[in-house]
Amino acid sequence: MSGLFDGTFARGGAAAAVSDPAWLDALLDVEAALARAAARTGLVATTAADAVSRACAEPAGLDLATVVARAADAGNPVPPLVRVLQDAVGPDAARAVHVGATSQDVLDTALVLVARRALAAIDRDLVVAAEAAAGLAREHRDDVVMGRTLMQQALPTTFGLKAAGWLAGLAGARARLLAVDASLPVQYGGAVGTLVASDGSGVDLRTALAAELGLTATPVAWHTVRLPIADLAGALGAAAGVLATVAVDVVLMAQTEVGEVSEGGSRGGSSAMPHKHNPVAAISARACARRAPGLVATLFAAMEQEHERSAGAWHSEWPTTSDLLATVGSAAAWLAECLTDLRPDVARMAANAEAARDPELAGALADALTPSLGRSAAHDAAAEAVHEARRSGTPLAEVVAARFDVDATALLASGPDVGEASAQVEAVLSEYDRNTGRTA
Amino acid sequence: MSGLFDGTFARGGAAAAVSDPAWLDALLDVEAALARAAARTGLVATTAADAVSRACAEPAGLDLATVVARAADAGNPVPPLVRVLQDAVGPDAARAVHVGATSQDVLDTALVLVARRALAAIDRDLVVAAEAAAGLAREHRDDVVMGRTLMQQALPTTFGLKAAGWLAGLAGARARLLAVDASLPVQYGGAVGTLVASDGSGVDLRTALAAELGLTATPVAWHTVRLPIADLAGALGAAAGVLATVAVDVVLMAQTEVGEVSEGGSRGGSSAMPHKHNPVAAISARACARRAPGLVATLFAAMEQEHERSAGAWHSEWPTTSDLLATVGSAAAWLAECLTDLRPDVARMAANAEAARDPELAGALADALTPSLGRSAAHDAAAEAVHEARRSGTPLAEVVAARFDVDATALLASGPDVGEASAQVEAVLSEYDRNTGRTA
Amino acid sequence: MSGLFDGTFARGGAAAAVSDPAWLDALLDVEAALARAAARTGLVATTAADAVSRACAEPAGLDLATVVARAADAGNPVPPLVRVLQDAVGPDAARAVHVGATSQDVLDTALVLVARRALAAIDRDLVVAAEAAAGLAREHRDDVVMGRTLMQQALPTTFGLKAAGWLAGLAGARARLLAVDASLPVQYGGAVGTLVASDGSGVDLRTALAAELGLTATPVAWHTVRLPIADLAGALGAAAGVLATVAVDVVLMAQTEVGEVSEGGSRGGSSAMPHKHNPVAAISARACARRAPGLVATLFAAMEQEHERSAGAWHSEWPTTSDLLATVGSAAAWLAECLTDLRPDVARMAANAEAARDPELAGALADALTPSLGRSAAHDAAAEAVHEARRSGTPLAEVVAARFDVDATALLASGPDVGEASAQVEAVLSEYDRNTGRTA
Amino acid sequence: MSGLFDGTFARGGAAAAVSDPAWLDALLDVEAALARAAARTGLVATTAADAVSRACAEPAGLDLATVVARAADAGNPVPPLVRVLQDAVGPDAARAVHVGATSQDVLDTALVLVARRALAAIDRDLVVAAEAAAGLAREHRDDVVMGRTLMQQALPTTFGLKAAGWLAGLAGARARLLAVDASLPVQYGGAVGTLVASDGSGVDLRTALAAELGLTATPVAWHTVRLPIADLAGALGAAAGVLATVAVDVVLMAQTEVGEVSEGGSRGGSSAMPHKHNPVAAISARACARRAPGLVATLFAAMEQEHERSAGAWHSEWPTTSDLLATVGSAAAWLAECLTDLRPDVARMAANAEAARDPELAGALADALTPSLGRSAAHDAAAEAVHEARRSGTPLAEVVAARFDVDATALLASGPDVGEASAQVEAVLSEYDRNTGRTA
Repeated sequence: MSGLFDGTFARGGAAAAVSDPAWLDALLDVEAALARAAARTGLVATTAADAVSRACAEPAGLDLATVVARAADAGNPVPPLVRVLQDAVGPDAARAVHVGATSQDVLDTALVLVARRALAAIDRDLVVAAEAAAGLAREHRDDVVMGRTLMQQALPTTFGLKAAGWLAGLAGARARLLAVDASLPVQYGGAVGTLVASDGSGVDLRTALAAELGLTATPVAWHTVRLPIADLAGALGAAAGVLATVAVDVVLMAQTEVGEVSEGGSRGGSSAMPHKHNPVAAISARACARRAPGLVATLFAAMEQEHERSAGAWHSEWPTTSDLLATVGSAAAWLAECLTDLRPDVARMAANAEAARDPELAGALADALTPSLGRSAAHDAAAEAVHEARRSGTPLAEVVAARFDVDATALLASGPDVGEASAQVEAVLSEYDRNTGRTA
Repeated sequence: MSGLFDGTFARGGAAAAVSDPAWLDALLDVEAALARAAARTGLVATTAADAVSRACAEPAGLDLATVVARAADAGNPVPPLVRVLQDAVGPDAARAVHVGATSQDVLDTALVLVARRALAAIDRDLVVAAEAAAGLAREHRDDVVMGRTLMQQALPTTFGLKAAGWLAGLAGARARLLAVDASLPVQYGGAVGTLVASDGSGVDLRTALAAELGLTATPVAWHTVRLPIADLAGALGAAAGVLATVAVDVVLMAQTEVGEVSEGGSRGGSSAMPHKHNPVAAISARACARRAPGLVATLFAAMEQEHERSAGAWHSEWPTTSDLLATVGSAAAWLAECLTDLRPDVARMAANAEAARDPELAGALADALTPSLGRSAAHDAAAEAVHEARRSGTPLAEVVAARFDVDATALLASGPDVGEASAQVEAVLSEYDRNTGRTA
Repeated sequence: MSGLFDGTFARGGAAAAVSDPAWLDALLDVEAALARAAARTGLVATTAADAVSRACAEPAGLDLATVVARAADAGNPVPPLVRVLQDAVGPDAARAVHVGATSQDVLDTALVLVARRALAAIDRDLVVAAEAAAGLAREHRDDVVMGRTLMQQALPTTFGLKAAGWLAGLAGARARLLAVDASLPVQYGGAVGTLVASDGSGVDLRTALAAELGLTATPVAWHTVRLPIADLAGALGAAAGVLATVAVDVVLMAQTEVGEVSEGGSRGGSSAMPHKHNPVAAISARACARRAPGLVATLFAAMEQEHERSAGAWHSEWPTTSDLLATVGSAAAWLAECLTDLRPDVARMAANAEAARDPELAGALADALTPSLGRSAAHDAAAEAVHEARRSGTPLAEVVAARFDVDATALLASGPDVGEASAQVEAVLSEYDRNTGRTA
Repeated sequence: MSGLFDGTFARGGAAAAVSDPAWLDALLDVEAALARAAARTGLVATTAADAVSRACAEPAGLDLATVVARAADAGNPVPPLVRVLQDAVGPDAARAVHVGATSQDVLDTALVLVARRALAAIDRDLVVAAEAAAGLAREHRDDVVMGRTLMQQALPTTFGLKAAGWLAGLAGARARLLAVDASLPVQYGGAVGTLVASDGSGVDLRTALAAELGLTATPVAWHTVRLPIADLAGALGAAAGVLATVAVDVVLMAQTEVGEVSEGGSRGGSSAMPHKHNPVAAISARACARRAPGLVATLFAAMEQEHERSAGAWHSEWPTTSDLLATVGSAAAWLAECLTDLRPDVARMAANAEAARDPELAGALADALTPSLGRSAAHDAAAEAVHEARRSGTPLAEVVAARFDVDATALLASGPDVGEASAQVEAVLSEYDRNTGRTA
């Protein structure tokens, strides 16, 4: 029995991309690319490199049990993996294995590949979520909803503008992750960064390896200067924050007393309480996103690394980076589902906004009655109407219409004023279309 | 292929105790205990409770695939587990399943059981580590080693006192974890904490359930007041900190230039650099411990939970608590191995301490030469001896013995002064023996 | 101009207790106590100790500008403070200054005193908050309010039970802080923990110093085994979490659409939006509490300290501990104000709970109509009534009373069932009274 | 008495840039710019805007005591500041105060200005540190030092390459902070983001305000989508990590047993232990940097903000951002001092590297003796020489020269091989010169 919590915390494609098999694939991809790059640089024979590359492409043919068994004693899985690979290709091709590299070269580059693959999965879900937000912004551009500050009703806005804010956040999170993805560097420096075991061709080999893997190359190894990890951590933390802020909006709008959105689909029912319909996707997105800040802090704290290779901080990055990618990926997957299935209740939004105008309406009523009743009696009459509406649960506008010979609609002739909401929605949508290449 | 990093980060017994099968066992243990407690409280028939208890004891007979498949949609695994259990026991006994409980009652209590089992594993390793530290303190009570402050040699202390400090920390960490373990409460409140579905016997049932599971009972549910989780997080964070501080001492003392301890065993060799012998256990303990503070922060941040059940923060506790228990357990397992196999090099400690006395020796030499040479020439002669020693790599004492007609040993007649180191070591050992029940 | 944010983040007494003057007082209190303890232990003359004690009691007579100017270069403020003190008391009494101590002895013990004084301030506010919660629990023991899980209305509970949950949390947070306070130890070990400069009386002097300051004594110095800091961090983090969870309940219940509580007092108004009344105290408590988890993580991460004194981690504790004490203290002060002034709207709670019974009422109506109309038509009639109520904003009960010849009240004859809420409230109150010594 | 810890934790210019007066200046700068932008947009008269601008430029003329006194009750300092400003300029110009804005517009934009000013101070110190690192890399390009992995001596590298690694990190940290600085946006949206109070010119006013302050403009307000704060947090966390990793290298190399660098200047002495010379600047940089990850986590956790303005998370950003800027600024200031004054001991580096070759030398000796003695006796003779060298503290090379008729120098004819260290140093320096505009 496994996977008890995976539906919640290993949702979307990122979790698989950081799994043990995915890590092993990445390690083998690096060793294969390293062999090819060494051949291109002239350090080993092409035939030997091909043999290594082939062996790496068939993990089933490798003695991986030994790798797993010896990884901890070696401090990391690379030393036993190298030995297993060398055994697999035979003594001649063995010289094309791990050319000039240290364990950290391979592990760091594999981490970068793992991250890149997980980022691709995260991006797919962010795109779905952003598209859904764009759709909501477009469709509900002018649908009025109460704006709420400090959790109190404030002034009206539009659901379109809320969704446009979500879109701006999701698109911004994507942009940051894509920028980090494009900057991810290969690691190659040898035992202490001097490239001493690369026969004088280390810098060239680094460039060739970067080209093989589609990564960037740095002028010097980053064994203990962990800016690439920091970039990743920062962008993932930012994405988690955006996902959380959209999710909490959905959760709050779905409150029974607010009722302005609900999640579609069959999930979220409660057998004990059949009237309940929990916004499970938004709740789960929030749960996943909340794991991120602590993991981000661990990665930033791990940047203090000693000399040419750290004694512990480096190691702590492996599970932390995996967990961070997986949990942000799960949050993105949940939010994609949430927004795709979101059911805005425009009528309820309007009713809430209408009810929110009661203070305004009461004031207008008092003003309207003052000429005939005098200020004081007019005020009392208006207050009594408010009281009656509250007591009976009847909309104040109906009470006013029933009790007084004034037109409640006329009292609030101008609809709710949402300022430049519409123009701003259009601006966000235009920017989004532009950035996703959809405009002429 | 799985477990690539498990040898490092899932070491010791705690990782297994927080695995998916262990969580499922805990969930079933809670449901079984709940059925028995309901029978004891008179809410259900004993035969029905027995049927439930039996079903829970045989997970193989349950449709767990369905539980896994439906957990995420339900928001947590308990609702589908309850349905699967009810199906398994048939309609009559089904009434004895999940009596009066809400999902969170079962999940929180299962988390407590999971924590308790992981804590037992952690404790076993902490005991091993503490015993090893006690052995080192006893054996090396009076072996001199340089004390170092701000990473600079300061004044001599003893390796026994260093080890006694480790012991005090490890024993203190244990004591805190055991205190938390003893305080862990059962969760039972029903959907909103009123015990409404417990037929008026909810408080009694809670007490009975606590007795069944050996947990404490609280006067009210702690669905959104998460002090038990905070207690756990705090004590685990403290333990991680102690493990890290011992580990960093080992790593620093094992530096090539210091060489005062090394790890025994075959691990830590480097095929590329045969003279290297990395203190893998200490390094790994440090790596595991460094994951803790971020996870602890996530749990403290998750304490802000809404109303009667939180929409996300609660959920984020599950993987975070598991990860925290596993990583602290791994750190403890590594440190137990590290200290058990630790090889102090007492001669090297003495040599380092001796070399550290050179400034003192030079001063004494200048004083001894002053009567014959005058202060200034005496000072120059002493400085020249220091220079010669440094140039040739010869111990200053030998240079002095060779060059001057003074007895270098007599110059530093008193051995290094380690104050009340010995008495303090004895005090720590006595307290440890007393607390572990070993004294008459 | 200073203090721009102090009203929010330096509220209550804790902020003053961690200010620079308070730190200086604590440092001087330690030096004074150390002199007296050294006299009691026979290490220095009583007259000299008295002179030191007197000088410490009059900071105005000390050259503190020099202390401030030289603290950073010395690595901490103690070395210049010692020199300034020695100068102030003259050469004879100077020997009674800082007897056998290292800077960290004085700074750590001062930190403990600072913490203790801040904890006293925090406790005062926690008591006020707990008393207010107890009052609410007592007064509203049986006032029905909707319970909400995952931010959805679930089943009814009582406001008394909600307040009892808050009380249990606040009392639990207090108990943890008081336990830590009572355990806080003196620090005294000399440069490397051997007590070498204490003339063989170091252990006795430590005991005497602890007695002078009302602190506990440890068998060995805790220069790099930071369990006392971890205890403090853990208990403060737990308190912040409890304060946040109560605050978020208030914020959510104060939402315009829920309206079940509001904060009294004049604060929280909005000149632009006169109908708004923000629950400023609860919001500010939440803001202060949210700063805690990150600070707690910093302290746990700082537990990894090297050798006999750490090169940086130790130092990072000073501002972090101060900030943590101040922000938790501010959160407690705000929540004390919030709960003391809290205005529950019992009528609104009842109305919300009543409205929440509509699904139940509709079911009862369908049942009541079935004998006369048949199941299907009865169901349709009930659904139509629900629709009408929703459309018109009229309570369903009124629609039912108006449309059908059935007694809506009778349909829901049994009021809302809140199970054992009342008994649990009493249990929490009893425990609270017992623990605060108020019961016979 | 204030500033007890400021020399350590408020070093450099960033601390002043986040002080209360600096915050007030920023708030007034925003209000002034807003008035001018409103005039440019045609919303208010230029004369009125000028009056506001003038009032903002003279804080001494404002009743700031009232602002401080009322800030907490209002929830933030902006509402009382607006009222004080309006009073100061009189009724006519009052209409040009705070045009169309909500408190958060002004506070967020002020935070951005505060951050920008602190970033400028941080950048100044990062430049000094980077220049110093560049100087070290250039000067010591080919000076051999032992590379150390996992805190064990590994293979030789150069001090130039170590310094080039530091330079790469410092330059990378700078680049990230400058990029964030250039992207910082103005905040302007009105109460709920609709720009409803901006008379239809809100979008134009936002653009004008951005131009006034040299900030970017977003298509929609970012009141609860906090990507700009996340960007700042991430880049500051990355900078702290780089500063910490350089600092820990210095601390480790300055260890008594390693002795390869020391800090110049008079600080760091110990009156009790005159032979000690603590690397205070590096230690303090590390202390400051270690406060960052927890603060970064607080900011990422605060990204979950509700609806149109958050009830607490937003507020928690103010002190946290200030603290983060100040502590990273202090770390940068300390590291600038550390690297500027750093005294590499090239002879000691060489001696350590030479000593590290002993294993290699012993092997070469055994090989050289084998023809005459046979393999076994040759091996024993070599081992005996190693033993003698270790016993006497004499360099192995000298023992070999004295005992055997072989040329120890010839045995290790080739100097230490540092691979492509030199070329990589040049590459880093070239990139640095290019990026700082120093190359043709």
